[in-house]
Amino acid sequence: MMRPKIAFAMAADKTKFVFDAEALARLAACCDIVRDTPLDEFNSPAARAVLADIDILITGWGCPMISADVVKAAPRLKLIAHAAGTVKYTLDPAVYAAGIVVTHAADANAVPVAEYTLAAIIFANKRMFEMRDNYRSDQARRSSHALMNEPIGNYHRTIGLVGASRIGRKVAKFLTGFDFTVLLSDPFVQADDPIMEMVELVDIETLMGRSDVVSLHAPSLPATRAMIGARQLALMRDGATFINTARGALVDEAALIAELQSGRLHAVIDVTEPEIPAAGSPLFSLPNVFLTPHVAGAIGMERLRLGQLAVEEVERFVAGVPLEFAVEPALLERLA
Amino acid sequence: MMRPKIAFAMAADKTKFVFDAEALARLAACCDIVRDTPLDEFNSPAARAVLADIDILITGWGCPMISADVVKAAPRLKLIAHAAGTVKYTLDPAVYAAGIVVTHAADANAVPVAEYTLAAIIFANKRMFEMRDNYRSDQARRSSHALMNEPIGNYHRTIGLVGASRIGRKVAKFLTGFDFTVLLSDPFVQADDPIMEMVELVDIETLMGRSDVVSLHAPSLPATRAMIGARQLALMRDGATFINTARGALVDEAALIAELQSGRLHAVIDVTEPEIPAAGSPLFSLPNVFLTPHVAGAIGMERLRLGQLAVEEVERFVAGVPLEFAVEPALLERLA
Repeated sequence: MMRPKIAFAMAADKTKFVFDAEALARLAACCDIVRDTPLDEFNSPAARAVLADIDILITGWGCPMISADVVKAAPRLKLIAHAAGTVKYTLDPAVYAAGIVVTHAADANAVPVAEYTLAAIIFANKRMFEMRDNYRSDQARRSSHALMNEPIGNYHRTIGLVGASRIGRKVAKFLTGFDFTVLLSDPFVQADDPIMEMVELVDIETLMGRSDVVSLHAPSLPATRAMIGARQLALMRDGATFINTARGALVDEAALIAELQSGRLHAVIDVTEPEIPAAGSPLFSLPNVFLTPHVAGAIGMERLRLGQLAVEEVERFVAGVPLEFAVEPALLERLA
Repeated sequence: MMRPKIAFAMAADKTKFVFDAEALARLAACCDIVRDTPLDEFNSPAARAVLADIDILITGWGCPMISADVVKAAPRLKLIAHAAGTVKYTLDPAVYAAGIVVTHAADANAVPVAEYTLAAIIFANKRMFEMRDNYRSDQARRSSHALMNEPIGNYHRTIGLVGASRIGRKVAKFLTGFDFTVLLSDPFVQADDPIMEMVELVDIETLMGRSDVVSLHAPSLPATRAMIGARQLALMRDGATFINTARGALVDEAALIAELQSGRLHAVIDVTEPEIPAAGSPLFSLPNVFLTPHVAGAIGMERLRLGQLAVEEVERFVAGVPLEFAVEPALLERLA
């Protein structure tokens, strides 16, 4: 394909954080950018004119729904490169039915989540959040000295990963550089999966019971709703840490709060349901909780990684090279 | 050497945290442990009897000074295996003069410090400490959303390591797994040093000016006292993070506090001088400071790594295999 025509569809105020000058220059080197301003709707005559003309559409945060009607209005469209984490809720099945190739940047969004998880594991095992808060309030080392003789730290500890998702796999790879035993629970992983060289595959109950840190990396699906409830949490070891960077819906929050209020467990939580916990929720104030506002994923300059991945996929498509992150429609329901 | 005789000299209440049953069993397999209880003094007749008898002494936290007199009382002593980070202040030069081989566990203590530093870099770049504290106090995502559009995160950021110490080298190696440019400032590193494959060697001023995170890994020596002062800190970029897991004496604390009070910089600080900052020090309360009570090094189960290293060195010594961590007396003054 020579000089395909390309346009963007995403929130205009987000574009500059995802595509820097270098990314735009690379696109311009292999495509004709038919419109600099991203489309934020698909219904105006101007938008329809763009749709009628383009071979490639780059989508991202704030992209309007790509309905069957939009697909019909874009008869030349061959590739949608989504510069964000999930295409599950933006694309009508008509997109796949029309033979449009879809690629997404979930892999680029997985990187910062895995990095956040790694840092959370290291600090949680050393109980750094607690020691910092205590030091700040008592300005003495008493409480830390007491903690130091507990079985804490990052040596000979067991980390349990729930879900061999993109993120779970990146975390497992990071953890090979440390003195950990890594357990994995995932109903789809087979014996010949490359992750099996890095983890011990166990059932979820064994994982909850043996791990010093349990980190959730499962997709949010009807089948995984509240998969971590009172029964699973009760299996966790005293003093263990629960990390959730996946989705709030995976956890029975009331059950988690009850365990945290007892002081038996610790938690690092980036996601809740609803997105912001109810005002006054104990998750905001409990001393054994490190709660962050859904920021483990791409923020700041990390968003440029999404744009870079989309540009690389466009370059591959134009060059006729196989894509690295094409969406397989049959596997869509397993994605996060 | 067949079945050498071995004893311990360290604080009795620390021994069990450094040597677990497995480590003691390995020692017993290659040596005769002449006394289970560690020596905590070298002057009693009982202690002198042990000294007169042993080929190997394992030392650790709380070991009394090994003076010329102690060396004279231990004529068979061939190896001191120090199961802690520094032998600088415990061993009289007479030890080396007597031809006693000394090995130390600084490498095992470097691991947790490097891990802490890695976690601190990841979280500082993402501004997680600040976002967590803000979320806790305002229970809203406003402040985080504002931060997200700043050039934060762990993509295309520059990390400056001050000192190619054992710890600095481990941090450099960790950082190869991330999307960072890594700068190093160290007056002793040569072009053929293996670390040069992982870092760009620059002078300290360039490092301070170009880095998003500056992490100190230099030894505390007369020449490095307050090496980071007002002039160096002023070179740091707005919004950059200063990490100190090395020694408080390396930093002009008043100058650092002034920069932190202006809000221009962030800091993760594990060490101060004095060890606990003066009551009411701004380091305890500033929102842009994550202060921990000198716990980056081996705590909890991480202390077992020190014992394991000492045991492995003893095993090598007994087997006549070269030691991995023998102290070179000529390089002592450069060690932390």
